[in-house]
Amino acid sequence: RINGERLWDSLMEMAKIGPGLRGGNNRQTLTDADAEGRKLFEGWCEAAGLTMGVDKMGTMFMTRPGTDPAALPVYVGSHLDTQPTGGKFDGVLGVLSALEVVRSLNDLGIKTKHPIVVTNWANEEGARFAPAMLASGVFAGQLTLDYAYGRKDPEGKTYGEELKRIGWVGDEEVGARKMHAYLEYHIEQGPILEASEKQIGVVTHCQGLWWLEVTLTGKEAHTGSTPMAMRVNAGLAMSRIIEMVQAVAMENQPGAVGGVGQVFFTPNSRNVLPGKVVFTIDIRSPDQAKLDGMRARIEEEAPLIAAELGVGCSIEPVGHFDPVTFDPTLVARVRNAAERLGYSHMDIISGAGHDACWAAKVAPATMVMCPCVDGLSHNEDENITPQWASAGADVLLHAVLETAEI
Amino acid sequence: RINGERLWDSLMEMAKIGPGLRGGNNRQTLTDADAEGRKLFEGWCEAAGLTMGVDKMGTMFMTRPGTDPAALPVYVGSHLDTQPTGGKFDGVLGVLSALEVVRSLNDLGIKTKHPIVVTNWANEEGARFAPAMLASGVFAGQLTLDYAYGRKDPEGKTYGEELKRIGWVGDEEVGARKMHAYLEYHIEQGPILEASEKQIGVVTHCQGLWWLEVTLTGKEAHTGSTPMAMRVNAGLAMSRIIEMVQAVAMENQPGAVGGVGQVFFTPNSRNVLPGKVVFTIDIRSPDQAKLDGMRARIEEEAPLIAAELGVGCSIEPVGHFDPVTFDPTLVARVRNAAERLGYSHMDIISGAGHDACWAAKVAPATMVMCPCVDGLSHNEDENITPQWASAGADVLLHAVLETAEI
Ligand SMILES: NC(=O)NCCC(=O)O
Ligand SMILES: NC(=O)NCCC(=O)O
Repeated sequence: RINGERLWDSLMEMAKIGPGLRGGNNRQTLTDADAEGRKLFEGWCEAAGLTMGVDKMGTMFMTRPGTDPAALPVYVGSHLDTQPTGGKFDGVLGVLSALEVVRSLNDLGIKTKHPIVVTNWANEEGARFAPAMLASGVFAGQLTLDYAYGRKDPEGKTYGEELKRIGWVGDEEVGARKMHAYLEYHIEQGPILEASEKQIGVVTHCQGLWWLEVTLTGKEAHTGSTPMAMRVNAGLAMSRIIEMVQAVAMENQPGAVGGVGQVFFTPNSRNVLPGKVVFTIDIRSPDQAKLDGMRARIEEEAPLIAAELGVGCSIEPVGHFDPVTFDPTLVARVRNAAERLGYSHMDIISGAGHDACWAAKVAPATMVMCPCVDGLSHNEDENITPQWASAGADVLLHAVLETAEI
Repeated sequence: RINGERLWDSLMEMAKIGPGLRGGNNRQTLTDADAEGRKLFEGWCEAAGLTMGVDKMGTMFMTRPGTDPAALPVYVGSHLDTQPTGGKFDGVLGVLSALEVVRSLNDLGIKTKHPIVVTNWANEEGARFAPAMLASGVFAGQLTLDYAYGRKDPEGKTYGEELKRIGWVGDEEVGARKMHAYLEYHIEQGPILEASEKQIGVVTHCQGLWWLEVTLTGKEAHTGSTPMAMRVNAGLAMSRIIEMVQAVAMENQPGAVGGVGQVFFTPNSRNVLPGKVVFTIDIRSPDQAKLDGMRARIEEEAPLIAAELGVGCSIEPVGHFDPVTFDPTLVARVRNAAERLGYSHMDIISGAGHDACWAAKVAPATMVMCPCVDGLSHNEDENITPQWASAGADVLLHAVLETAEI
C-alpha cells in the first residue's frame, strides 16, 4: 500500500499554490500559479530520482527507469491545472498519486521492467483555453500543434505565447513518446460512487462530448428607445437556445447531459441590447448515437430559433471526443486490484473527459476513480477524505505494478 | 441661426477622443478618455469667454454672464460620456450645441438678462456606474453624494476613487446652484421622427424606468459529470426570467419596453454550471401604472421561476425614475421655435432617460430632439446628418434666447 499520509501532505502543499477565494484553487493553465505548481512538482520528482522531459505543449514527463532497456514505459498521471474556481483534487490527485506510487516503490526498493513515467498533462481543464485535454489531444494526434498554439483565452492571449511566457516550452516533439500503457486516477466528479457507497470506481468507458460555441448576431440598440417590434435581440435568442438545449438533454434521458457554462454579452451594458452574444453549449453522452443526435438537433434548431428573432447564428465546434471504451485487460487489472485490496468497487462510466480519453487512442489505457463529497466538482467546495484518496492510490499502485512488471 | 459647420466640426473633433472600434466612441465616464474630452471642452469654453465651475460629482458648469445680477441662469447641456460602444452624438450633440448657442450669441453680440450655463453632466450613461444620470440625480436631490461615490464599476472601482483619479472633483456642493430653467437637446435614439419625416421632436414627456439587478444563486458543478436531476442551474433560471421579461413587456404593448443588456456568469467556464448569475433587467413605460405593474410582476415571478429550479433569487433596484412631464411653457416655446424656423416637427415622448428628467425636479425643463438614422443609438453606427444637427441647434438657440431674455 502507498503512504496515505505523505500523499495527503503533498495534496495540501500543492493546494497552497494558486489559492481560490473559498478554500479551493485557481491555478489555471499557463498562469504564474501554474508555473509555481510545476516547480514544486518538479522538485518533488527530482527528490524521488525521476528525470524530466518536457514536450512542446508543456507536458511534463518524469521518468523512473526500468530494468529492461527495450521495454516501453508505463505512463501514469493526470493534470495540475485547475478551473478558475476549482477544487484541490480534480487532476492533482492523479498526478500526486502517480508520484506517490513511485515514492512507495522507492521505499520498498522495487524495480520494474518497464519504466514508469509520472505525467502532468498541460491544459486539461479547457477553462482558459478550449478545448479541454489540449496537450493530450495533440499528443494523440487528434489536434495539431499549430491549432493548439493558436487557441486564445478570453483576453486574446494565445496558448503559444503564454507557454513561452511561463518558460515551459519543452524541446520534445509532441507525441514522439510511445507508451506501453496509460493509467490515470481521478476523483469521480459525480455522485454515483458516493450514492452507491463504493470506494473505487472501475472506469470502463468515458462519455463523449461536443462543445459548440454559438455566436449570435443581433443589433446593438438602446433598451429604452427601441420599440419591442424593432429589436433584434441576441440575448433573447440565447435564452431560448439554452432552454432548447435543456429540452434536448431531457429528451435523451437517461444517459445524456447538456448545459451552458460560459456566456459573453457585447457590449454588456445595462441599457444596450447586445449586438453579439457568444456562449458555449456542452453536451455529452456515452452513447454515440445520442451524442450525435443531440448535436444535430441543436445545430438544426438553434439557427431557426435565432432566425425567428432576426438574429444571425453561427456554430463552431470547439471541443470534441467520441465515447471511449477503455482497455479490457487494464480494466480487469484495476477491478482485481480493488478486489484483492478489499475495497468495495463498481464499474463506472466517466462523466467528465480526461487525458486518458486521448491516451486511449495511442495505447491501452484506463482509469481508477474515488468518490467525492456530494458529487461536487468544478467548485471550490470539492472534497474527498484522506481515506478515499489513499484507497484509490493503493489500487493504482497495484495496477501499475502489474502493468510495469517486476 | 447657429453656425452649423462650426457645430459639426466640433462634434467631429470631440469624436476623435476615445475612439471606438467601428467608427463610434468609447469615452466612458471617469476614464482617461473622459478626462481628455473634458479638457478639450474646457478649452473651447474658455475661448468662448465662459468661466468654469465644477461640483463634487464632476459636473462642469460653464457660465456666460447675464446683464441682470439678480437673474438665475438658464442651464443648457447634456453629457460627454459615452457607452462602451457608443455613437458620436448621444449626449455630445447637446453639450456642443449649447456651446454653439453661446458662440452664436457672441458672434451676434447678443447679451441676455439671465446668465447661460453650458453644462456637461457626469455619468449620464450609467454604463460604467449604475444608475444612469447619476450626477444630475444627486444634483436634483434624488440620490445622495455618498451613494454616488460608492457606486462600483465591473472591476470594483468606485465613482469617488475614479473621479479623484482623473482630477475632476470640484469644490461646489452638488445641487447648490438654482436654475431659472433647464434645456437639453439630444438625438432621439429611436425611430419615430425619422419614420414620421420630422426634423424636430418637441419632447413633452419622458418614460419612466426601473433597472432591476437580479442575483441568481445556483450550484457550481461539472457540466459533464453532474446528472440533469442534480443540477441547480442558475443560467437556465436566467434564461427563463429573460423570456418572462419579454412576455411581460409584450403584454403591456403599446407603450412599454423590457429587456436585458448585461449578464455576468460566475465562474464563466465552459464546463462549469454557473454558481452565480447576475443580470440587469431594464423596463420602461411613460405610463406610471404600467411601469409599476411590470415591476411588480417581475419581482413576483422571477423568484418563483428560480425556485422551481432550486435556484436562489434576489432583486435589487439599481436605477429608477418615474415618468416625467416637461414644463408646458418651455415645451410650447420649443414648438413655436420650430414652427417659426420652418422646421417640420411633432410632439414626442422620450424613450431614453436624460439629465433633463432629473433637472425637471428642480426647475422648469424640457428637451429638443432630432432624428437619428434607423433609430439606432447605443451603437457605434449611430448617425445623424449635419442638417439634422443644426436644425435642432437652431431651435435650441431660439428657445434659449426666449427663456434667457434679451
Ligand atoms: N476532468 C475534467 O473535469 N476535465 C475537464 C474536461 C471536461 O469538461 O470533462
Ligand atoms: N440618453 C441615454 O441613453 N441615457 C442613458 C440612460 C438610459 O438608459 O436611458
